[in-house]
Amino acid sequence: MKRTLMIATALLTATNVWSQPLATCKPNTLNIPGAPYPCIMPDRTAMFRVNAPNAQKVTVSAGGRVEMTKKDDGLWYATTPPLVEGFHYYTINIDGSSVSDPATRTYFGGGLWSSAIEVPAADADFYARKDVPHGVVRQQTYYSTVTQQWRRALIYTPPGYDTSGKMQYPVLYLLHGWGENEVGWTDQGHVNLIMDNLIAEKKAKPMIIVMDNLNAAKPGEDASIYNARSVLTQAVPTPPPAPGAAPAPPRGGMPRMSNTFTEMMFADLVPTVEKNYRTLPGRDNRAMAGLSMGGFQTFNTGLTNLDKFAYLAGFSGNCGSIGTFDPKTSCSGAFTNAADFNKKVKLLYLSTGSVEGPRVKQFSDTLRAAGVNVVYFESPGTAHEWLTWRRSFNDFAPRLFR
Amino acid sequence: MKRTLMIATALLTATNVWSQPLATCKPNTLNIPGAPYPCIMPDRTAMFRVNAPNAQKVTVSAGGRVEMTKKDDGLWYATTPPLVEGFHYYTINIDGSSVSDPATRTYFGGGLWSSAIEVPAADADFYARKDVPHGVVRQQTYYSTVTQQWRRALIYTPPGYDTSGKMQYPVLYLLHGWGENEVGWTDQGHVNLIMDNLIAEKKAKPMIIVMDNLNAAKPGEDASIYNARSVLTQAVPTPPPAPGAAPAPPRGGMPRMSNTFTEMMFADLVPTVEKNYRTLPGRDNRAMAGLSMGGFQTFNTGLTNLDKFAYLAGFSGNCGSIGTFDPKTSCSGAFTNAADFNKKVKLLYLSTGSVEGPRVKQFSDTLRAAGVNVVYFESPGTAHEWLTWRRSFNDFAPRLFR
Repeated sequence: MKRTLMIATALLTATNVWSQPLATCKPNTLNIPGAPYPCIMPDRTAMFRVNAPNAQKVTVSAGGRVEMTKKDDGLWYATTPPLVEGFHYYTINIDGSSVSDPATRTYFGGGLWSSAIEVPAADADFYARKDVPHGVVRQQTYYSTVTQQWRRALIYTPPGYDTSGKMQYPVLYLLHGWGENEVGWTDQGHVNLIMDNLIAEKKAKPMIIVMDNLNAAKPGEDASIYNARSVLTQAVPTPPPAPGAAPAPPRGGMPRMSNTFTEMMFADLVPTVEKNYRTLPGRDNRAMAGLSMGGFQTFNTGLTNLDKFAYLAGFSGNCGSIGTFDPKTSCSGAFTNAADFNKKVKLLYLSTGSVEGPRVKQFSDTLRAAGVNVVYFESPGTAHEWLTWRRSFNDFAPRLFR
Repeated sequence: MKRTLMIATALLTATNVWSQPLATCKPNTLNIPGAPYPCIMPDRTAMFRVNAPNAQKVTVSAGGRVEMTKKDDGLWYATTPPLVEGFHYYTINIDGSSVSDPATRTYFGGGLWSSAIEVPAADADFYARKDVPHGVVRQQTYYSTVTQQWRRALIYTPPGYDTSGKMQYPVLYLLHGWGENEVGWTDQGHVNLIMDNLIAEKKAKPMIIVMDNLNAAKPGEDASIYNARSVLTQAVPTPPPAPGAAPAPPRGGMPRMSNTFTEMMFADLVPTVEKNYRTLPGRDNRAMAGLSMGGFQTFNTGLTNLDKFAYLAGFSGNCGSIGTFDPKTSCSGAFTNAADFNKKVKLLYLSTGSVEGPRVKQFSDTLRAAGVNVVYFESPGTAHEWLTWRRSFNDFAPRLFR
């Protein structure tokens, strides 16, 4: 109550508090209600404003770090170079402390709750909320016998699911990336809207989409797969090693695959879905896909369980390390016999952003050279970010369950 | 991708990065995975840590403002006095800039995405996730003809809803408070878990709970009902008034009621719910409740629509201003004839935290003195905060639809 009264008092005594940006600078759609900054200009430069009265130095990291300048009104301002289209996490740095911007909604990305800016894309229509029938996203609680914890999956059911009687649907298991969680595909990715639009245009079959959290550890198992960022933000400066001391061992891998996730998926998640939702049975009605680390996990889980999945996809994530990749032995040996693989797997789909490096393209080329059928997609002009994955999904989903 | 590489590089070069708090200091359950601070001691004091290498002054506002101290490891630390049990929003202030703490999940409260700490309560069992059948929380998208925008409601369906055939359920419309949104009751309030537990113990009837967003404005209408906090955080310092100038007019009211919300509710929300969910018809199967501003809204909507609701509740929110309240005329004259009111309304429920001031109690006493039947509940030791409202809901829900 004290806080409410303080705010009320401040409101009553404050007047003329708005300093509006240029009319051509459109507020970021992810801003909290009424916040005029950050805003985006027609040339895709973005303007930021921060209230940090006693700070010595303030920067914003959005598509590169930009120094902010304190203006006459006592607030800090910056304008970035033109940003790439799409959704970007960003941070503010105040006197060395990297924090989120109070002006925007936060999203779980990079292992913490981060500010975000949505730069309008020319092709934004495919993920817009349109006047079409909409599916429902459900929070499904279930107990994992493997991790011995309660877990939450988000489950998209297509329009009409509740009124379609006994109709059964195919299922796509869809995974987020490193440092994100089970809400990434809906909150950042708008996968429910993309799917609603595809179904309305009869471009994709109605399907159930299951989005779970990659973080799965048994009791006593190292759960640090998601903790890298919190190490950084909470880091204690490391003393320099003593002269002549052996170099310290590296602190575990970054994006890595989890066999515990696979075990949990088949012991707990799939049975929960198939018990509680009207799913079509068998591998021809099951697909698995993921982005970045979720792509690695998809291949880790899917390639060793081809009796359960006929469709697999990695968006900006695959299963091999170029250089050491050998189609005969890598990826659990799934590609040893290309003809067999092609007969079994109805779709192997790989995608990447055109400016995020050649790894996925090289992987796709290597597989094709070994005789494996691959559908490869590239998102023009985008990096390791959500617009790459929204576009990938939009291109991928129509190919499922045909 | 650049960011991912930077993080990976930092990880590989950083060793011994953890400075663990005392073993008796339990990490806040709302921390991001792996973050050891903030943590809570058995005496309910809380320890905070912030990485702000070049800051001059850092404070934490959690149950009062506490100055942080820079220690030898270069990080800022503070220990608060013992905190009250329950869920508290809090902020960090770095050189005058009020921001959220990167170490915790953020919640939409006070009009922005705010850090939070959960101080274990002695009675926490009633909102714990237990081994009982769990309901499902659904994100229901619908178009509002009144606001001419797409909206989202969260809808709780009780355990067994999907397999109970044609069974119909009563409906509770449940509203959040000022500066929060439609996820407040599930994310901060755990209302789904409270309900699961009550149903498992056969203390409450299975019901559908509809949680919408109070923010409802027609095109061109002032939508600033939620914008007060963004005004504060983005404030431009106000120049002092010229000598002799008239005092500036106040900037609108804070918690206020919205007739547009009521109109939208009956035109769009209730029809969406009754079309898409198996609801029991009629006022005897409809309840409305809300906290703080949502309580005001409940009385604004409910008391003028007693043909539609037989159960009404305000948690830390009512409809009158003590001092000017007159049972004969206030609150749309709903209490003019107490006997009539008592016959019509099966439950009028009011609650408050014992340390948030006497307003609700006074309101309840005034109504009782005028002959109106009121059930009044007080949460011991809590203020205008979520533990008050979790407890209120837990006491209120069993009284519904009897």
